[in-house]
Amino acid sequence: MATPAKKLSTLMPKEFAPTVPSVSEEKPKRYLWLRYLIPIAVGLAIWFSPAPAGVSAKGWQLLAIFVGTIVGIISQPLPMGAVAITGIALCAVTGTLSIGDSLSGFADGTIWLIVAAFMFARGFIKTGLGSRIAYLFIAAFGKRSLGLGYSLAATDLVLSPAMPSNTARAGGVVYPVLRSIASAYGSEPDDGTARKLGAFLVKNSFQATIITSAMFMTAMAANPLVVKLAGDQGLNLTWGSWALAGLVPGLVSLALVPWILYKVYPPEIKETPDAVKFAKDRLRELGLVKRAEWTMLGVFIVVLALWIFAPLLGNLNATTTALTGLAILLIAGVLTWDDVEKERKAWDTLIWFAALVMMAGFLGKLGVVPWFSKQMAGSVSGLDWITAHMLLLLVYFYAHYLFASMTAHIAAMYAPFLIVSIAAGTPPMFAALTLAFASSLHSSTGSLKGEICCL
Amino acid sequence: MATPAKKLSTLMPKEFAPTVPSVSEEKPKRYLWLRYLIPIAVGLAIWFSPAPAGVSAKGWQLLAIFVGTIVGIISQPLPMGAVAITGIALCAVTGTLSIGDSLSGFADGTIWLIVAAFMFARGFIKTGLGSRIAYLFIAAFGKRSLGLGYSLAATDLVLSPAMPSNTARAGGVVYPVLRSIASAYGSEPDDGTARKLGAFLVKNSFQATIITSAMFMTAMAANPLVVKLAGDQGLNLTWGSWALAGLVPGLVSLALVPWILYKVYPPEIKETPDAVKFAKDRLRELGLVKRAEWTMLGVFIVVLALWIFAPLLGNLNATTTALTGLAILLIAGVLTWDDVEKERKAWDTLIWFAALVMMAGFLGKLGVVPWFSKQMAGSVSGLDWITAHMLLLLVYFYAHYLFASMTAHIAAMYAPFLIVSIAAGTPPMFAALTLAFASSLHSSTGSLKGEICCL
Repeated sequence: MATPAKKLSTLMPKEFAPTVPSVSEEKPKRYLWLRYLIPIAVGLAIWFSPAPAGVSAKGWQLLAIFVGTIVGIISQPLPMGAVAITGIALCAVTGTLSIGDSLSGFADGTIWLIVAAFMFARGFIKTGLGSRIAYLFIAAFGKRSLGLGYSLAATDLVLSPAMPSNTARAGGVVYPVLRSIASAYGSEPDDGTARKLGAFLVKNSFQATIITSAMFMTAMAANPLVVKLAGDQGLNLTWGSWALAGLVPGLVSLALVPWILYKVYPPEIKETPDAVKFAKDRLRELGLVKRAEWTMLGVFIVVLALWIFAPLLGNLNATTTALTGLAILLIAGVLTWDDVEKERKAWDTLIWFAALVMMAGFLGKLGVVPWFSKQMAGSVSGLDWITAHMLLLLVYFYAHYLFASMTAHIAAMYAPFLIVSIAAGTPPMFAALTLAFASSLHSSTGSLKGEICCL
Repeated sequence: MATPAKKLSTLMPKEFAPTVPSVSEEKPKRYLWLRYLIPIAVGLAIWFSPAPAGVSAKGWQLLAIFVGTIVGIISQPLPMGAVAITGIALCAVTGTLSIGDSLSGFADGTIWLIVAAFMFARGFIKTGLGSRIAYLFIAAFGKRSLGLGYSLAATDLVLSPAMPSNTARAGGVVYPVLRSIASAYGSEPDDGTARKLGAFLVKNSFQATIITSAMFMTAMAANPLVVKLAGDQGLNLTWGSWALAGLVPGLVSLALVPWILYKVYPPEIKETPDAVKFAKDRLRELGLVKRAEWTMLGVFIVVLALWIFAPLLGNLNATTTALTGLAILLIAGVLTWDDVEKERKAWDTLIWFAALVMMAGFLGKLGVVPWFSKQMAGSVSGLDWITAHMLLLLVYFYAHYLFASMTAHIAAMYAPFLIVSIAAGTPPMFAALTLAFASSLHSSTGSLKGEICCL
């Protein structure tokens, strides 16, 4: 197995500019015909098998398209967005859903919360506020390599509530800083010096961003998909309730993981006084906090406060807050309309998210989900819920080795596992939240493809 | 007044690559404070004036936000999309509409028809099929400068049903060809040689693209806004009915306008045999029609046929057809997902369109439009409908001198003028269609800003 630093280096841009690395999704694929054949075959097999009693014909057709779409997202004949567009087109052109229903996902509030948060992420990168936060932490705690690890994890934590792409956080903000410091200490990915410092820092930041991804609804692009899928089971996860549930386990993990990693995968260099000097030099170069950074920081804090205290404010909707924040960033000139138009990953997310949310919602309305729940209720009556839920959680977690994408994993497995767990007697909100956290944490295994990004 | 060629040359890229010119929208604006002040003042004035009887308080608030948004699109403190996002945020954050209602425009089928058509346009440019069509027409009819004008107009006509950005048609496909031929004949915009050939061709293609914009629902990005606004009055304009109504006047105009222009604004060069040779050389360079071009052409023809014959096919929805066509282009590899993600103008259109359609729709539901219609019904009873409608049409047409954008013009004036005309007794569909055509044709005046593009 390649060292993580080596794996990362192939994903990251050579220059250390604070931009999001653009992993090309469109290189020629092996076994392309098979990647097409499997989802089509699975979809057709379901389509032409008889619908069980209690499920409408349309509902069963939708299940065929939904499963075909998810298998397509896993087998990847095309990038996820293109598979999603095909799924939407199939819903409409087969007459399974009206065109209005097929497009209904695009009006979903949760999607636009994530689109707005993608724009906030751009603001952190563009204004340089993200790097400044990293340098501040390093200047304060970076004297030793363990402290450096904590500093980079803390940077990730601070940014995570408004940066739904953990690729943007770990790759766009943290990595360039990390890489510069490792290089300054003569630790490079490819020449046998990785274990001096860089390998520890990379592994540490990788694990940290996985933890922070689980802590906030807006810390990972597919978390809102979890919220929608739980919502289809009548479980209302708000931004605040997610954060509240995630806070203590998240902070404990962030405190323990760097220390454990430092023990089991220690860097050769322990003292890093030059990192503090490096960070202070960078801060001096950055100069005083710019007006755009203050505005970005102000909007970030206000939006965060409104998300947290929404229940005290007449349940102010999180998307309303986010869109208002985005409008303020545009009016203040922190972001230009140009920035918004070219935030491609936001438009990508809009498309696949709308497709999956729409299909999942109508699977419920057309009787497929209730039918599945009823089937499950009978089948798991043997075990007590604690054992059952622990088993389900373990399977859900390690099943990640089968998926190249967190979104595919969640779309395929979250809802059925939640239904089965609830059927086994697990308190529904506990089941929903633990599976929600596992939906990010499963990536700590590293997927078969060695991806660090969530999408 | 600058010659049109001169005006165009400032809008067009220097190199003749077949790309859409990117007119930067974000240069510093003059009187920026005034551009902000006017929409805010107008919006607040409406907000704080008492709602008339029959209009709900929420409806009146929405009118304030709607008018403020449109005035903002006209005064342009920020690009249209940013003003639209602000409008959506204001609807939600003021509690005028729920967040779900505020976002409902994004699920509108017409919007996704246009988004898909933007992708078709990319396919024409990317595969080179657009230029090939231009060269074919020129090789056949380009022996004289008038024939050259007809050839370029014909190219525009062929592409227009699947290219909703007339900037992409006229600027991305036709202009590079036109410019190369004019240059070959020693006619340049800036050195006094414009009138030899280039000025005639530019003015001709400008007028041609305005005419084709009026002929098809998908030939201009804001046409579907007309469809929605007419729909709010209970008038159902389909893709086919629009095309049927536009066909004869459109073709007659396309036959007459180049000839009239040739008489009143003649090029000095009358014979252009080298243009035929130039086109044939280009065609030889392009070689055989590539697989991607055949696929593009096939999808284009099938989509067009399905749009035209939808009523014979159980009213197959135009958006369903378009999305299916897009899925096929992605599967066939004509377009990559990358192309879709970076088609920025599609995302821009999605945003402003969703905002305007959503507000216009709820103005009807909340009683503002019915109230306005009732007011108008009383006030125009003096005139016969023919005189009334002609007057309205003339005012609507020449009011374009006040607008920098076709969308702003339509959003501000189409619905009230339609309502007044219907109140005066004009047959509703006739009123809707003539105002619809005028919504593109008004740009033949050239706006104050000398823009050639619709957005």
